[in-house]
Amino acid sequence: MANITKKVSWSSRHDEPGATGEGTPLLNGSEQPRYSRQLSGGGIFQIGRLSTVDLDEEVASDQDHLRSRPKEIPHNEKLLSLKFESLDYDNSENQLFLEEERRMSYIGFRCLEISRWVVCGLIGFLTGLIACFIDIVVEQLAGMKYQVVKQNIEKFTEVGGLSISLILWAVLNSAFVMVGSIIVACFEEGPMIHSGAVVAAGVSQGRSTSLKRDFKIFEYFRRDTEKRDFVSAGAAAGVSAAFGAPVGGVLFSLEEGASFWNQMLTWRIFFASMISTFTLNFFLSIYNDKPGDLSSPGLINFGRFESDSVEYNLYEIPLFIAMGAIGGLLGALFNVLNYWLTIFRIRYIHRPCLQVMEAMLVAAVTATVSFAMIYFSNDCQPLGPDHSEEYPLQLFCADGEYNSMATAFFNTPERSVRSLFHNQPGTYNPLTLGMFTLTYFFLACWTYGLAVSAGVFIPSLLIGAAWGRLFGILLASITSSGSIWADPGKYALIGAAAQLGGIVRMTLSLTVIMVEATGNVTYGLPIMLVLMTAKIVGDYFVEGLYDIHIKLQSVPFLHWEPPATSHWLTAREVMSSPVTCFNRIEKVGTIVDVLSYTSTNHNGFPVVMHHAASDEPAKLCGLILRSQLIVLLKHKVFVELARSRLTQRKLQLKDFRDAYPRFPPIQSIHVSQDERECMMDLTEFMNPTPYTVPQETSLPRVFKLFRALGLRHLVVVDDANRVVGLVTRKDLARYHLGKHGLEELQLAQT
Amino acid sequence: MANITKKVSWSSRHDEPGATGEGTPLLNGSEQPRYSRQLSGGGIFQIGRLSTVDLDEEVASDQDHLRSRPKEIPHNEKLLSLKFESLDYDNSENQLFLEEERRMSYIGFRCLEISRWVVCGLIGFLTGLIACFIDIVVEQLAGMKYQVVKQNIEKFTEVGGLSISLILWAVLNSAFVMVGSIIVACFEEGPMIHSGAVVAAGVSQGRSTSLKRDFKIFEYFRRDTEKRDFVSAGAAAGVSAAFGAPVGGVLFSLEEGASFWNQMLTWRIFFASMISTFTLNFFLSIYNDKPGDLSSPGLINFGRFESDSVEYNLYEIPLFIAMGAIGGLLGALFNVLNYWLTIFRIRYIHRPCLQVMEAMLVAAVTATVSFAMIYFSNDCQPLGPDHSEEYPLQLFCADGEYNSMATAFFNTPERSVRSLFHNQPGTYNPLTLGMFTLTYFFLACWTYGLAVSAGVFIPSLLIGAAWGRLFGILLASITSSGSIWADPGKYALIGAAAQLGGIVRMTLSLTVIMVEATGNVTYGLPIMLVLMTAKIVGDYFVEGLYDIHIKLQSVPFLHWEPPATSHWLTAREVMSSPVTCFNRIEKVGTIVDVLSYTSTNHNGFPVVMHHAASDEPAKLCGLILRSQLIVLLKHKVFVELARSRLTQRKLQLKDFRDAYPRFPPIQSIHVSQDERECMMDLTEFMNPTPYTVPQETSLPRVFKLFRALGLRHLVVVDDANRVVGLVTRKDLARYHLGKHGLEELQLAQT
Repeated sequence: MANITKKVSWSSRHDEPGATGEGTPLLNGSEQPRYSRQLSGGGIFQIGRLSTVDLDEEVASDQDHLRSRPKEIPHNEKLLSLKFESLDYDNSENQLFLEEERRMSYIGFRCLEISRWVVCGLIGFLTGLIACFIDIVVEQLAGMKYQVVKQNIEKFTEVGGLSISLILWAVLNSAFVMVGSIIVACFEEGPMIHSGAVVAAGVSQGRSTSLKRDFKIFEYFRRDTEKRDFVSAGAAAGVSAAFGAPVGGVLFSLEEGASFWNQMLTWRIFFASMISTFTLNFFLSIYNDKPGDLSSPGLINFGRFESDSVEYNLYEIPLFIAMGAIGGLLGALFNVLNYWLTIFRIRYIHRPCLQVMEAMLVAAVTATVSFAMIYFSNDCQPLGPDHSEEYPLQLFCADGEYNSMATAFFNTPERSVRSLFHNQPGTYNPLTLGMFTLTYFFLACWTYGLAVSAGVFIPSLLIGAAWGRLFGILLASITSSGSIWADPGKYALIGAAAQLGGIVRMTLSLTVIMVEATGNVTYGLPIMLVLMTAKIVGDYFVEGLYDIHIKLQSVPFLHWEPPATSHWLTAREVMSSPVTCFNRIEKVGTIVDVLSYTSTNHNGFPVVMHHAASDEPAKLCGLILRSQLIVLLKHKVFVELARSRLTQRKLQLKDFRDAYPRFPPIQSIHVSQDERECMMDLTEFMNPTPYTVPQETSLPRVFKLFRALGLRHLVVVDDANRVVGLVTRKDLARYHLGKHGLEELQLAQT
Repeated sequence: MANITKKVSWSSRHDEPGATGEGTPLLNGSEQPRYSRQLSGGGIFQIGRLSTVDLDEEVASDQDHLRSRPKEIPHNEKLLSLKFESLDYDNSENQLFLEEERRMSYIGFRCLEISRWVVCGLIGFLTGLIACFIDIVVEQLAGMKYQVVKQNIEKFTEVGGLSISLILWAVLNSAFVMVGSIIVACFEEGPMIHSGAVVAAGVSQGRSTSLKRDFKIFEYFRRDTEKRDFVSAGAAAGVSAAFGAPVGGVLFSLEEGASFWNQMLTWRIFFASMISTFTLNFFLSIYNDKPGDLSSPGLINFGRFESDSVEYNLYEIPLFIAMGAIGGLLGALFNVLNYWLTIFRIRYIHRPCLQVMEAMLVAAVTATVSFAMIYFSNDCQPLGPDHSEEYPLQLFCADGEYNSMATAFFNTPERSVRSLFHNQPGTYNPLTLGMFTLTYFFLACWTYGLAVSAGVFIPSLLIGAAWGRLFGILLASITSSGSIWADPGKYALIGAAAQLGGIVRMTLSLTVIMVEATGNVTYGLPIMLVLMTAKIVGDYFVEGLYDIHIKLQSVPFLHWEPPATSHWLTAREVMSSPVTCFNRIEKVGTIVDVLSYTSTNHNGFPVVMHHAASDEPAKLCGLILRSQLIVLLKHKVFVELARSRLTQRKLQLKDFRDAYPRFPPIQSIHVSQDERECMMDLTEFMNPTPYTVPQETSLPRVFKLFRALGLRHLVVVDDANRVVGLVTRKDLARYHLGKHGLEELQLAQT
């Protein structure tokens, strides 16, 4: 947990192993953090922040979790963890790459482009299939649970002994949770967005490292730049399938993941999203015995808002804004509570058995509280003439009636949301809604961040829909009945948006997702106003839930813009210095030593060149990545001093692609003492034109370069093109705007 | 029309006036091209390509058109025009700027941020107002025209002499067109997207140069970076108001204008879009006597598709794709015809009076053809029981019936589209639709590119809706009636999308705009499939309409990605060289001379520094813009050689902002012979850390930098940081992928 020592002085010995701070050996996959999953919560419909870092983790963790051991995570928010590694969005345009491009014909480029579309189509298709599978399983399980508990309750309602039903319910819940935990632990099954991303990472690479199968296809895509694009498409496809919101999915993927806008890429992402919704709808239509009817939306169906009930009027706008403010306040409360809870968890509940126990405890408590609420509620509603209610429970109600509270608790949350949106006025009484909101709020807050898949998205919608409907009912009661106020479903929708916005604080993509999920464009403006108000009010108190979790895990996360008031900071202050450099023709032993040092945590090394027969200082001539060096060492691309340079074994880009992305650790590569004396010629493997900036470049300018180009390393040079330092994403992520102006976080090893 | 001479050799005399090719004097506003308006067509709902260049032109032309004289434009597509200047999206972070940022407190930054939102709100509000005004005027005029012609026709139908009606109609049409031409010439009134952009440029700068009013507000925003953001918001607001599609507007603005994705900016653009739709709806609701009812969509209203008619089935998908292919073919035909027409116009019709005459001719021919079609048509349809038809004309039909062809031609196109979408099956007979499609196709093709505001968007929708409905009717006739085929309105919608997509070739934003305009999410997938098919089929034959016009006008336009197969090209080949540089402390006379040379067409000059008492070559130390030099010269920021450096007059950023964006031409600045001998110290005005690349950098890498960072100049340096060349957008735009691989266009002076 050492702070990086900063020295502005220029070290002339480039080949000395760097003293750039301490860090985890980079390529040791077993260090992947277990908490990376918590970052994005869980639950089928959970939405996580799709940072470069996060996606990388996500994609990596489906391989690594089996090996990983949970570790205690420091909860100091002034620290940035070094465990997270970013992707490299900047192509290494070395000689091999250029040769390959030169060999490729125009037709070749067209074929590549077509195969990108094919891959995106596949990603969409598989993501849709997974969503369909999940939907059917959840439906079936919920139905089974209802049947069992219902029969049990009916049996015991008359003879007394409902406590047995309670126990049954609690046991069932806990069992589901346990299965859920195991599934999460084994298959990384989780939020649709993550499923999409994992599918994308698998499909686009044409192989599965965990299954040890290589299909020898799509080999060209085995590099960060391409993979990252496909993962964005997968994430979009996941959101699209979850909400039936293809455009929302694209926007979400861009809002959370993109750094620069590329039209062709956007279209491919859109294509994947569309195919995903399409696939889901098609297979669900078969499951629902209406084959070929594609008009049904995604997994979460807000139901159809009829045209006459969706109208709103100018004088309702202030009410909507007020609801947005309430959502912002409640969201901030939710986030603060969850923040404390998470700190508690980080401190005390970091062993797997404890985590499973906590999850089961939550499940049992949830069942108990629900049961108590249902037991003491006397909100009996008449069954509809067509018995269209889902899962009605009679309990102590008269014949032909059902317990309204029971329905709210017993349904899957998706169905509860839908019934809050669409049920006739009068279906719920205000007390039921109030009690439901209160209990569900705290239960949801406790649930979020458990080791099991359980997200915040649907619970937020449900809480919001409940208090929104309550708001609508109260409005109707203080004004004359029969007026426009009479439709509480509209207010339930607005409340749902407000609560969700208050917790996660997204606006654009959330607006579109909500609009697509309602299937009605008319609500666009009110939803947007509500989300914006919720964001402004909420941001006044505390950050959004995802940002809190990112911070709690010390993820080095680049925000959208550099902190204001940071123009006075220059690359000189930000960079790591001195930095380890290699000579263009370097001794193998030196390279092995540098890579083996745990204290050298950089993944890119500037390559410098000494002018022969001159005492001029070495000039920058390229940048080489740690992973490239590993591959070179593995293939023993050495030049023996005695022989000519031509004996250096010829490597192809294919060799690098085959090793991607799980490069072996340096420890696993054996280099003999003789070989250590050989030389390595880096010329054709290094990127000969890395991006550079002078030392006086301001932080915002450096930041903009990183953001816009997706850089991982930026070399800082003086006016004679000599390396003076190296800026990485982590160096930039350290600066953020706190309450007292610009704050600097420290880099930590954990 | 000189090709730039390329020399790779390094010229050591930096202060020699550059020989970098020939060009227009940059700051001479009178050179603004008249054709820049044609680029984006016309018509209220016209959508143009929002390139950096185009926006700049657009914003500039509202000031310059009064002075501009039309010039003959070369129609050689192998040339790039030098008339177009790009914006500078890269902040000049000079000492003045840094000092200002340093002085600004955190509160100051917050205030700035808030005023950005306020400006966006204002932009949305004003754009909405304008849209509302246009809508009402068009409605009123169409109504008047209908009344006049109808009465006339009724009068002459029985007594004979319908030719008088024809003449009346033709004269009315021509009169409208003439008024339109004059409006375009005087007020740059045009497509909503342009209105929005012009409003944005005005509001955000807090002043109007043509009205000579300076409100002394928003002075901070007087620079390219900020202005460009607001113009994007204005464009989005315009599209949003036109189609009632706020999300579509945002996407359109991003798809056509953005280079990198900035979340806060996206939200502000979204805000402006929302406010714009909201304002339009609010005032239209008052106009329609339903005050406060905000549920009506934008100017173009596709009408509500009822839930039971919007369903589609899997087996319809291939039909949709087939329609997409038809749309692509027809679109390509349209584009090819319009391409030939435009070349003809560029050659022969470049005088204003000829242009007005052509426009009036088109109007008259349109009236004649319409009249003939109506006259010979015998498609009589019964009037609805509630007389809901708009503008029915009885003509030779029986009482209680109306002429269907007349309605199609007489309505405003927006209404015709709506009735094609929603009228009951059987309202139009197939022959009417076929004839209508045929004539309207050629008329629309002739109209696009006239000097008058007349767009391609609505005509495309109308043509597509007509043949789409025809397609639907034919389908219904060959299958059993009463099936799902029975709804031709659905096919009209798909046809409209196919035709529009085949002509303009956008997909993402167009999908969203169409979906928002229909108000129904269900059609998302088919519309997207259709647009994609139309694009693929159309691209096989010819480019999109906007791209054709951009090329015909030799606009130096950067595409989304560098041409494939261009990795072997390096900055060395692309750059202009030798390049004119200034010394850090430079003689005033030299600067004036360089700026006065018409042959120096660059707008940025590298600043170099000679090390005192050493014969080392000069190193790059900054970049200064032509506009900055002009302001310095105007304020006579000179150091007399005799006195100390302290006498240099202190300039503030405010002085630069006051001059923005119409910097005076160098000719208007008088510099005496004494002053020519003074020196200018550029240190605190130049950008001290311009982006640089080495000579070996590949074209795609340079391209990426330009695209991602919105650069205008990129300095090429050697490994000792000496300037060897300068790359501008125009240098990059010259390379494009033609039929025979990579082609190089030439830079032309016109």
